[in-house]
Amino acid sequence: MTFVAPRPADLADPLWPVGVAGVVYGGDYNPEQWPDEVWEQDAELMRQAGVNLVSVAIHSWVLLEPRPGEFDFGWLDRLLDLLHGAGVSVNLATPTVVPPAWLYRAHPEIRPVTRDGVVLERGSRATFCPSAPAYRRAAARIARAVGERYAAHPALAMWHVHNEYGAPVGACYCPESATAFRAWLRERHGSLEALNTAWGTTFWGQRYGDWDEVEPPRATATAGNPAQELDFLRFCSDELLACYRAERDVLREHSSAPVTTNFMTTNCKSVDYWRWGREVDVVANDHYLTAEADRNHIDLAMSADLTRAVAGGRPWMLMEHSTGAVNWQPRNIAKRPGELARNSLAHVARGADAVMFFQWRASRFGAEKFHSAMLPHSGTRSRVWRDVVRLGADLGSLAELRGSLVRADVAVVWDWESWWALELAWRPSVDLDYRERVAAFYEQLWDAHLTCDFVAPGQDLAGYRLVVAPSLYLTAPGTAAVFGRYVRDGGTLVVSYFSGIVDDNDAVHPGGHPGALREVLGLEVEEFLPLRAGERVSLSGGATGDVWAENLRPHGAETVLEYADGPAAGKPAVTRHRLGGGSAWYLSTRLRGDDLAGVLRGAYRDAGVEPADLPRDVEVVRRHGPDAEYLFVLNHTDVDARIEASGTELLTGGRCDGLLTVPAGTVAVLRTG
Amino acid sequence: MTFVAPRPADLADPLWPVGVAGVVYGGDYNPEQWPDEVWEQDAELMRQAGVNLVSVAIHSWVLLEPRPGEFDFGWLDRLLDLLHGAGVSVNLATPTVVPPAWLYRAHPEIRPVTRDGVVLERGSRATFCPSAPAYRRAAARIARAVGERYAAHPALAMWHVHNEYGAPVGACYCPESATAFRAWLRERHGSLEALNTAWGTTFWGQRYGDWDEVEPPRATATAGNPAQELDFLRFCSDELLACYRAERDVLREHSSAPVTTNFMTTNCKSVDYWRWGREVDVVANDHYLTAEADRNHIDLAMSADLTRAVAGGRPWMLMEHSTGAVNWQPRNIAKRPGELARNSLAHVARGADAVMFFQWRASRFGAEKFHSAMLPHSGTRSRVWRDVVRLGADLGSLAELRGSLVRADVAVVWDWESWWALELAWRPSVDLDYRERVAAFYEQLWDAHLTCDFVAPGQDLAGYRLVVAPSLYLTAPGTAAVFGRYVRDGGTLVVSYFSGIVDDNDAVHPGGHPGALREVLGLEVEEFLPLRAGERVSLSGGATGDVWAENLRPHGAETVLEYADGPAAGKPAVTRHRLGGGSAWYLSTRLRGDDLAGVLRGAYRDAGVEPADLPRDVEVVRRHGPDAEYLFVLNHTDVDARIEASGTELLTGGRCDGLLTVPAGTVAVLRTG
Amino acid sequence: MTFVAPRPADLADPLWPVGVAGVVYGGDYNPEQWPDEVWEQDAELMRQAGVNLVSVAIHSWVLLEPRPGEFDFGWLDRLLDLLHGAGVSVNLATPTVVPPAWLYRAHPEIRPVTRDGVVLERGSRATFCPSAPAYRRAAARIARAVGERYAAHPALAMWHVHNEYGAPVGACYCPESATAFRAWLRERHGSLEALNTAWGTTFWGQRYGDWDEVEPPRATATAGNPAQELDFLRFCSDELLACYRAERDVLREHSSAPVTTNFMTTNCKSVDYWRWGREVDVVANDHYLTAEADRNHIDLAMSADLTRAVAGGRPWMLMEHSTGAVNWQPRNIAKRPGELARNSLAHVARGADAVMFFQWRASRFGAEKFHSAMLPHSGTRSRVWRDVVRLGADLGSLAELRGSLVRADVAVVWDWESWWALELAWRPSVDLDYRERVAAFYEQLWDAHLTCDFVAPGQDLAGYRLVVAPSLYLTAPGTAAVFGRYVRDGGTLVVSYFSGIVDDNDAVHPGGHPGALREVLGLEVEEFLPLRAGERVSLSGGATGDVWAENLRPHGAETVLEYADGPAAGKPAVTRHRLGGGSAWYLSTRLRGDDLAGVLRGAYRDAGVEPADLPRDVEVVRRHGPDAEYLFVLNHTDVDARIEASGTELLTGGRCDGLLTVPAGTVAVLRTG
Repeated sequence: MTFVAPRPADLADPLWPVGVAGVVYGGDYNPEQWPDEVWEQDAELMRQAGVNLVSVAIHSWVLLEPRPGEFDFGWLDRLLDLLHGAGVSVNLATPTVVPPAWLYRAHPEIRPVTRDGVVLERGSRATFCPSAPAYRRAAARIARAVGERYAAHPALAMWHVHNEYGAPVGACYCPESATAFRAWLRERHGSLEALNTAWGTTFWGQRYGDWDEVEPPRATATAGNPAQELDFLRFCSDELLACYRAERDVLREHSSAPVTTNFMTTNCKSVDYWRWGREVDVVANDHYLTAEADRNHIDLAMSADLTRAVAGGRPWMLMEHSTGAVNWQPRNIAKRPGELARNSLAHVARGADAVMFFQWRASRFGAEKFHSAMLPHSGTRSRVWRDVVRLGADLGSLAELRGSLVRADVAVVWDWESWWALELAWRPSVDLDYRERVAAFYEQLWDAHLTCDFVAPGQDLAGYRLVVAPSLYLTAPGTAAVFGRYVRDGGTLVVSYFSGIVDDNDAVHPGGHPGALREVLGLEVEEFLPLRAGERVSLSGGATGDVWAENLRPHGAETVLEYADGPAAGKPAVTRHRLGGGSAWYLSTRLRGDDLAGVLRGAYRDAGVEPADLPRDVEVVRRHGPDAEYLFVLNHTDVDARIEASGTELLTGGRCDGLLTVPAGTVAVLRTG
Repeated sequence: MTFVAPRPADLADPLWPVGVAGVVYGGDYNPEQWPDEVWEQDAELMRQAGVNLVSVAIHSWVLLEPRPGEFDFGWLDRLLDLLHGAGVSVNLATPTVVPPAWLYRAHPEIRPVTRDGVVLERGSRATFCPSAPAYRRAAARIARAVGERYAAHPALAMWHVHNEYGAPVGACYCPESATAFRAWLRERHGSLEALNTAWGTTFWGQRYGDWDEVEPPRATATAGNPAQELDFLRFCSDELLACYRAERDVLREHSSAPVTTNFMTTNCKSVDYWRWGREVDVVANDHYLTAEADRNHIDLAMSADLTRAVAGGRPWMLMEHSTGAVNWQPRNIAKRPGELARNSLAHVARGADAVMFFQWRASRFGAEKFHSAMLPHSGTRSRVWRDVVRLGADLGSLAELRGSLVRADVAVVWDWESWWALELAWRPSVDLDYRERVAAFYEQLWDAHLTCDFVAPGQDLAGYRLVVAPSLYLTAPGTAAVFGRYVRDGGTLVVSYFSGIVDDNDAVHPGGHPGALREVLGLEVEEFLPLRAGERVSLSGGATGDVWAENLRPHGAETVLEYADGPAAGKPAVTRHRLGGGSAWYLSTRLRGDDLAGVLRGAYRDAGVEPADLPRDVEVVRRHGPDAEYLFVLNHTDVDARIEASGTELLTGGRCDGLLTVPAGTVAVLRTG
Repeated sequence: MTFVAPRPADLADPLWPVGVAGVVYGGDYNPEQWPDEVWEQDAELMRQAGVNLVSVAIHSWVLLEPRPGEFDFGWLDRLLDLLHGAGVSVNLATPTVVPPAWLYRAHPEIRPVTRDGVVLERGSRATFCPSAPAYRRAAARIARAVGERYAAHPALAMWHVHNEYGAPVGACYCPESATAFRAWLRERHGSLEALNTAWGTTFWGQRYGDWDEVEPPRATATAGNPAQELDFLRFCSDELLACYRAERDVLREHSSAPVTTNFMTTNCKSVDYWRWGREVDVVANDHYLTAEADRNHIDLAMSADLTRAVAGGRPWMLMEHSTGAVNWQPRNIAKRPGELARNSLAHVARGADAVMFFQWRASRFGAEKFHSAMLPHSGTRSRVWRDVVRLGADLGSLAELRGSLVRADVAVVWDWESWWALELAWRPSVDLDYRERVAAFYEQLWDAHLTCDFVAPGQDLAGYRLVVAPSLYLTAPGTAAVFGRYVRDGGTLVVSYFSGIVDDNDAVHPGGHPGALREVLGLEVEEFLPLRAGERVSLSGGATGDVWAENLRPHGAETVLEYADGPAAGKPAVTRHRLGGGSAWYLSTRLRGDDLAGVLRGAYRDAGVEPADLPRDVEVVRRHGPDAEYLFVLNHTDVDARIEASGTELLTGGRCDGLLTVPAGTVAVLRTG
């Protein structure tokens, strides 16, 4: 068989900010915090930095609608005129993330309620119940007013609905949410009888006799019904999506400019972005480093790859990241010189055609005044400002790669529903951690210099040489069928422990674990053997596992590594099942680092995938355009890197023949096509 | 003087499951989770496993009473007929632990409220206010309906009221509880004046002028009134007991079968089982290992011994334990091969005549689907199933020992009230830990192969050679008097620090610590000297203490060990007071392991108690029948053990003369009488 | 220029307990907990101990007013007569810290509410909303009744209003508090427009259109408005102060005896004592050691010095400390022999003219029964009692120093507002810790045997040779101006990182950090560089910093030490700016111990301040009277200390010429004037 990676030609272009040429550059801009004279200064400095798009009015509801139904657009008219005059386009927000104080007074029921019954009050941001009709009505009104007024403004490039749906509050347990939850459940399950079956209410005598008995999973004496919890998580994501869709549809009545909202793909557990990607005209993402973490550029790459997947492979926008430290982590480590450019261009390398920041100018007051900005408190007399100007120029040099695509032979399955379900109460071990496992496998692929896609469960896998499914606890029969076809057709599949266990309702697949994957993996897990805190097991060949082991019985799978000690001593630990033209690997314990790399090398061989022979922490990614190919080399190390490559280096305009030197901490972009 | 251990003849038999011969074997059975065809399969598999009793309908309220006052018994009729036909008897529950959803809608006041005012909603289990009249009325109605219908069913062997009273919610602070608390207090204290005195309300100006001012100890600014807290804990235990008694009395109107409810003796702080033991016809206990703990078979033995004590020395039922991992601990470690049998037979060795599990068949859905079962997810193709069948056969071989008793020369005082009071707020050190101290002394006795009883405070101690009272913080004058008589009559008493400090109302006994025990111990504690976190003190002879020290002044006691350093350097640390014919030992610091063993050896000599010379972790216990004695040898090690003994080994039927070999990890039971 | 330390003559005497000669000695006395026969005993024992003042009726509201408006003073009349007869004066409380149960029933709205909405119930103490009109009315009524009845009683020496305002509850978020908060804000800001500006409500769209929209900063989705939080903290302190003032003014209608309330200067974050000091006739303070902490006598000294500052340099009263262990810390370590006397006399050395304890006699019941007392549970047969009697005699020998004052050349800036603001949400690092930094600098001064004053921000600094401003995050322009004048006039200023950042509204000073101090320090901080948990940076000269670093650019300052590694490698770490006649030092990283001492030695040289050459942990302080000087030498070590000094040792009456020997663990007081 032959593998065919997805080709650019298969992918329609996303809608793109109207009137913005080249790579988009800019950030959130909150001029309402500053006197008018600063606006003029800002426009001039934006020009110096090469900014071509700013996001405005995100938190301006009360300024635009100071009293119910009374609008004041004067300041925003002035601002858009000024920006247009300065050649800066506008990504205009519907300011619905912070309702005005008057709306809370008139409708206290829009306040969200926690699982324990704590009513959250206004005073910060994003404090609203997405199911409250009063909130939805008021949000639609302001969105309509903004849409009507600015649809035709020449500065308008696109619409930014709301802000970061799903954070910091992802769920509301109030009575209005209960009503909406019941309606959502009727839609999903059809009848109360079906709900009783889906939720397994014969367990612990929880059977419902009337729809009005159904409530959100509020605080209760001990572990609640997991199917109820899981449906509630789906409902929460869907309620936010309904909010988004309502505002988007209002805007579309007036405007053909693209509509989006900013995601936080790898870091927002409460929203299932697979269901959101198709609802935006262009995918936009916010990404912030976990500042204290080691090698956090790998997490950045994972975020970028997942964002590209949510965008269906099409170019996307980096809507927010930071020039330096944020202010909401425990210790807000500043970025080192060079890091800002490497971070920015790493996103571009993985499909971003926009590089934007929170925020243009650092606030003097409020909760985010210690968040970095393009223009820091120390102003233009600062390294950060100089780096921002330099980055603007660099992005200008990369204009031609806009619209080019990233290809991958390897895919990793990402699944919000498995994440949710796996981390509900009363699992076999508190050390089971969905995101940790995905990140561990991703890290190995990154270290092997293998570019990878993310795929949704059940998505067609044809064209990938290798597919990795980490901790896919919830595996619907359809997803399992796709894996089976994929392997039989010659694919290589790698599955980690605690995958394939339950169906859509968190019910264990019948017949022995892993019910959905027994056949494709050629084995049965007779008993889970969670390990003690800190306990380690040795494997044949010297590897070490922790967290988890299993008593597994192969039915066709061959043993690759076995347990040398621990509760499964002498039993298979890692197996490989040849099935049809392909093979399915299974890892029954938690491997990390070199031990995990060692096992994966076997899978790479099966898949015909070749890790690149490149220095550690030198990141190499390609974008493919219709006429050219672009090679990004990001040197995250503190020594110069030498790479075999030829072409034109776009940032410097220099020509490279055969050997490219990328100085320590810097980035090169070669047109090689 | 001579010591006389309690003799079997003194003990009346408990009521026992009707029609179940030999040792009881079985588990919780929840057929409502499965289609009817599985029921037939289950009956056949129960036969194969030797199951003779199953607990049913524990969570079936809403199925039996789908609408208020409308009953549907069809499915339960069918089930009981089927089981009876298969030779399996039924332990039939009153399903009152999970009220139907309709009861919550009609009576939201049955929801319990936490100390902080959080209302707990239905959605899990055991989420009800035991003082709510609406709950009590509805519980009595369903108990009556079940009692009437099944009293005469031939499958009925006994009644299982409710489930695990006291967990996971042990207290409710709602207004209905407040009303009931006031009534309880009137009963206890008689007058408001007496309440004011008992609670010491002159402290912090808390005097009550009206009964309606009295409330449960809800969240307040800082530490509350400890006497109020203590009475509230008593009230909570009594309210649950009142719930139990009401249901039991309803059943007794219709049936003479034994009535019980399942305890969790060593692990449920919220219920004072000394007050419950006399209210059940047979004591039943649930025990689950702390899976990650080292040598957790000692904790199991402690639980079994305390259960036997609660049963007044009579045989009891192990109502729930697990075949493997549970699902509610942080890391649910599976049992190793052999452990299931050792655990089961250790309970039998210490007086259990029933071995039952939660649960017969693993659930596919709900919160407990990862809890092990007799029939696991992998079905009969599993080691666990094979071990379950084997255990059934083994218990069959032990039928003759039913009714035999355990004798002990040593007793440990266990006291829920001291546990409660010692761990209230604002004690001298947060490192004071009631259960830790009891377990530490118990471990020493277990390691010395000394079988021990537990006794309630104030219980007659005649017949015991040695009595240990760990951390008996709350010591009523009557309890102190019993200790005095016991020692004067020749007994040996061992008391640990922070005993004898307060009376029933948590008031310090006057005249210097330990007020209730100064005389029997022959000393006064001038000042408590709690130690810093991690601080250790050396004692003469090389022992090391931590957590606690004291400035104590002997008045008659001799110094056994003194402090070599630390805040009490040069003062007595361990003392011994000869009083009448006996002696009273006092340990003023926390000793563990060999250091504690060393001190206890002195007490053993005083008591004429001889530790057995047996290998570590080989557990030896005897049961005494009217005609024979049964020697249990449980080998918890991984090497074979050889014990001098003669008789018939009941599990194999083999004969042993002089030397019994018990292979690593296995159990032998010898008829030696 | 010349330095002039504040002179005694500048300081008016505080009002002092009427009729109490010499140093005040005594404690809290709660006779209502004991039968009358104990009262007689107590009076006799007080005489033996030299007690001359006791605080009574602190928790007696319900006893004095058993029903609304009905008073029962009989027992208190008897008590005061008895005490007067025994020569013991009375510090009589308004018993408003614990409202009677009947007030809660009649006015449930007096219960405080937490940020999360939890209603705190009565049951402990100090559980009231200071803004509730019902509470204030009832408090005024009982204060008036007590004032009227006892103003003329001969035992009355002073008034003790309430108890420990601000603990354990410092804030209430109820609707009554919201109403009061709005009134307070109108007073502070004048107009809603001014409030919007001060709070920066253009950030996150939080603008107010109506006063009724303003609420306390209750639980919200994420970080709230920091200016709102800061104003709420000010409001909470002011509401408590209003409670105090109302009661004081009621008392003053009837009595000219001094009125006070007990502070907890260094340990109560919720109250800004700078605003309280001027409102009491004599400053009274409660101090409790952090029992487990190493060298906690330094914290004691800091508390005493801050209390003296709050008292404007005048003598003050130690209203509560403990004879031994308290009962509310995790591990309540008892005091070692000698510690009680050293603690007591250390307070006297630093300006206290009263030494009082919580409590006279240990309670038998209630939440504080394990708190130590002058008369412990073991009564007079105890070391503690003997030490109490000895201390009474010692204080008698020191009568002549009453009214003498302490002088210092060094001052440390203490600021509750910086403490509040620095520790609000979303600062650059969670490791920023206001109190830790103050204590770290204080410890260095203590170790250098330099007596120091505390000063409020903005207070005139003339007369001090050296001023230290640790973590003065909130620096108003006026405060900065004082620093500028001080340095230009020849002073030496030491400032630590994260000082001078924001104004009164937590808004960043414009123009680059540290906005308020750029000029005086001669530098700009371009970027904060918080360090990772546990990360350390090396400085030139071998010092090591952690927690924090900065990218700073000198504008006039010279580099004293530079970073040798870490994110600021090669940049200045410690700088010194010569300005006018003085110098301003800046420490941009967290230094401790010897590293901090090393830097400070440079500042001492600039300031002309000379650390004394004395053994470590030998504390030497002087009090200055009009005719004599008193040298306190407190030997906290376990070896004898020899000090060059001459004079009369007041405790022994002995004469010392040239060399004073202070035995290990003891104190000497020399009249040297």
